[in-house]
Amino acid sequence: MKPLEGIRVLDLSRVLAGPYCTMILADMGAEIIKIERPGEGDDSRAFSPFIGEESAYFMSINRGKKSITLDFKNPLDMEIFWELVKKSDIIVENFRPGIMEKLGMGYTEIKKVNPRIIYAGISGFGHTGPYSGRAAYDMLAQAMSGLMSITGEAGQPPVRVGTSVGDITAALFGTIGIMMALHVRSSSGEGQKVDVSMLDSQVAILENAIARYEVTGKVPGPLGTRHPAIAPFQGFPTKDYYVIIPCGNDILWGKLCDALGMEQYKADQRFKTNKDRVENVDELDRIISDITKTKNTHEWVELMDLIGHPVGVINTIDQVVNDPQVLARNMIVEVEHPIAGKMRVAGNPIKLSTTPGDIEKPAPLLGEHTGWVLQELLGWNEEKIRAYLKKE
Amino acid sequence: MKPLEGIRVLDLSRVLAGPYCTMILADMGAEIIKIERPGEGDDSRAFSPFIGEESAYFMSINRGKKSITLDFKNPLDMEIFWELVKKSDIIVENFRPGIMEKLGMGYTEIKKVNPRIIYAGISGFGHTGPYSGRAAYDMLAQAMSGLMSITGEAGQPPVRVGTSVGDITAALFGTIGIMMALHVRSSSGEGQKVDVSMLDSQVAILENAIARYEVTGKVPGPLGTRHPAIAPFQGFPTKDYYVIIPCGNDILWGKLCDALGMEQYKADQRFKTNKDRVENVDELDRIISDITKTKNTHEWVELMDLIGHPVGVINTIDQVVNDPQVLARNMIVEVEHPIAGKMRVAGNPIKLSTTPGDIEKPAPLLGEHTGWVLQELLGWNEEKIRAYLKKE
Repeated sequence: MKPLEGIRVLDLSRVLAGPYCTMILADMGAEIIKIERPGEGDDSRAFSPFIGEESAYFMSINRGKKSITLDFKNPLDMEIFWELVKKSDIIVENFRPGIMEKLGMGYTEIKKVNPRIIYAGISGFGHTGPYSGRAAYDMLAQAMSGLMSITGEAGQPPVRVGTSVGDITAALFGTIGIMMALHVRSSSGEGQKVDVSMLDSQVAILENAIARYEVTGKVPGPLGTRHPAIAPFQGFPTKDYYVIIPCGNDILWGKLCDALGMEQYKADQRFKTNKDRVENVDELDRIISDITKTKNTHEWVELMDLIGHPVGVINTIDQVVNDPQVLARNMIVEVEHPIAGKMRVAGNPIKLSTTPGDIEKPAPLLGEHTGWVLQELLGWNEEKIRAYLKKE
Repeated sequence: MKPLEGIRVLDLSRVLAGPYCTMILADMGAEIIKIERPGEGDDSRAFSPFIGEESAYFMSINRGKKSITLDFKNPLDMEIFWELVKKSDIIVENFRPGIMEKLGMGYTEIKKVNPRIIYAGISGFGHTGPYSGRAAYDMLAQAMSGLMSITGEAGQPPVRVGTSVGDITAALFGTIGIMMALHVRSSSGEGQKVDVSMLDSQVAILENAIARYEVTGKVPGPLGTRHPAIAPFQGFPTKDYYVIIPCGNDILWGKLCDALGMEQYKADQRFKTNKDRVENVDELDRIISDITKTKNTHEWVELMDLIGHPVGVINTIDQVVNDPQVLARNMIVEVEHPIAGKMRVAGNPIKLSTTPGDIEKPAPLLGEHTGWVLQELLGWNEEKIRAYLKKE
């Protein structure tokens, strides 16, 4: 049994923040009825890369969901929508705030039809506040939240995190909010609205940057791979790529000098304590980099392992998807799509001992389950379904 | 009422991944009994920056929790621990896998004493697999997961995300797992184990990097602030900092040429369609950068707004903590600490309409609630408590 068996989600969301949230719910056993625009469907069906005509991007985020197409301007389609609202536990949307209200589908209306429903709106800036109605992209959320200003090399341009953490952390906080609302409903019997924004979510993960600024008044900047308070604790260039050397204390510093053949620096006053090394980190960086460049990464890893100093590798994506630990944890799983065939996607990181989730079914074709939904959920007879599908 | 009122969490975790998870649970109304080592307590009590002798880092992540000190080698302290296990709903730990078992406190033992308890172990590599027993830092998780390899400037060294996303996303997936286990328990009456790792969590957020590699066979690299498939859609240098120009289609391209006074490029074959612009993005970058450098960021924002082209700013932390939207959403809140005084911390991004969370209480002093726990939760009389506290 999966943890969310018996929970039905009406999913009006598109692209990433909403779909990532409903992906987690789907992996955990909820039934996701994804409502898409007739014709094009979710915008991300047009996002590269493609396998044939199918977007691998769309397929990776929408595995295990059911798809039905509805035109919100068609009264019969809206009748279907409201019937589905009555029969669902959760509704997820990531429209710009105000759009659902304009369509007559805001939380106030939804609640009237089904007071038990949990309504999650995931948006760029949230359903309140002066920027509420603005559109947002992941990049803008990363930029406006300060995250970009602390990511990159010191003295170099700010850098976007290489994955859409703006969307994804909003999806994660949104999922937590939904689960909390479900917990409350189990005793109160009432649903509620969950309002999560990309900007809020980025501020929530800024971690020590806020404390550092509040206490010292100094504006934190980017540090490359460097640790702000420990040195050397960063990536160094090797002959073929980079190696991470996390040297956390003075005993390790001695070992590191042995491993790198830099015994002459052991007693150097500039590098004696961690405080000294942090103060002279630029010089230290140059000295160590000149040495690490002389060997390949795997040679340094063997050497450091031998001498008992921690060491890390910076894997590239081709290495990650074949890493023994990643595979042992089922973090790369194969899904078979009826048209695109087999493809590998990221697995589910939430490992539950008695009710684990699972990734079995592929992403749906556009409107693949419209007939099924009308028949199984709304109880329409075949004739009515055939007439409806013909009219479309 | 807060969503998790009546839920008690036994928190054995230290530093960030575990404490961030229990911070969310605390903000949402759960009672967190943080068990710390006598003497030093949570390692992060020694992390800079400090307000007087109190770590602002520790205080920001541990607001609203109760602290009790227990020595796992002392039999009387272990009696207290097992009494607390009986009276708790959730236990959270982020030790290296195997440590809890060595202490005789693994999930098998915990479950015997309280089969309803939900046990969350948040670790670097997870409780199974070949690397399970290894120690991990956020930096190693970011490096090994591939995240670092896709973050940074093209052709430049990989970069660490400026916040500890390795720890924090593990905390978020862990919180989701706990809430799902709680949902299952509400019908089954049984707890279970939640096993979440930093490495798994990073792989789960790699998003399109995996799909791109699986489909094209090309290893994704870092792109600075650039979008992989749209151009120009990135940060550009200005006289005083940077500006984000997200030019999503050909109509916007025309507007952008007007705004930047580069009409001569409108009909340029190299930049005619998005496909052309992506192919010639390096040239485009040089041309636009030369222009954007001539004015300050706020001037470009006004100009682009006037001409109706989307535009974004890269805020620094000092701007973020004073941003009107961030403040309107209560994403920077003040907590009053008995020794350190007032300090501002990141707020709670999960906005629930009828049972919202709240951040009211400061982080605890080390062992501040030991007496309270013994009296209120375990029902010890004053004499017994006094004798116990004296012996310590």
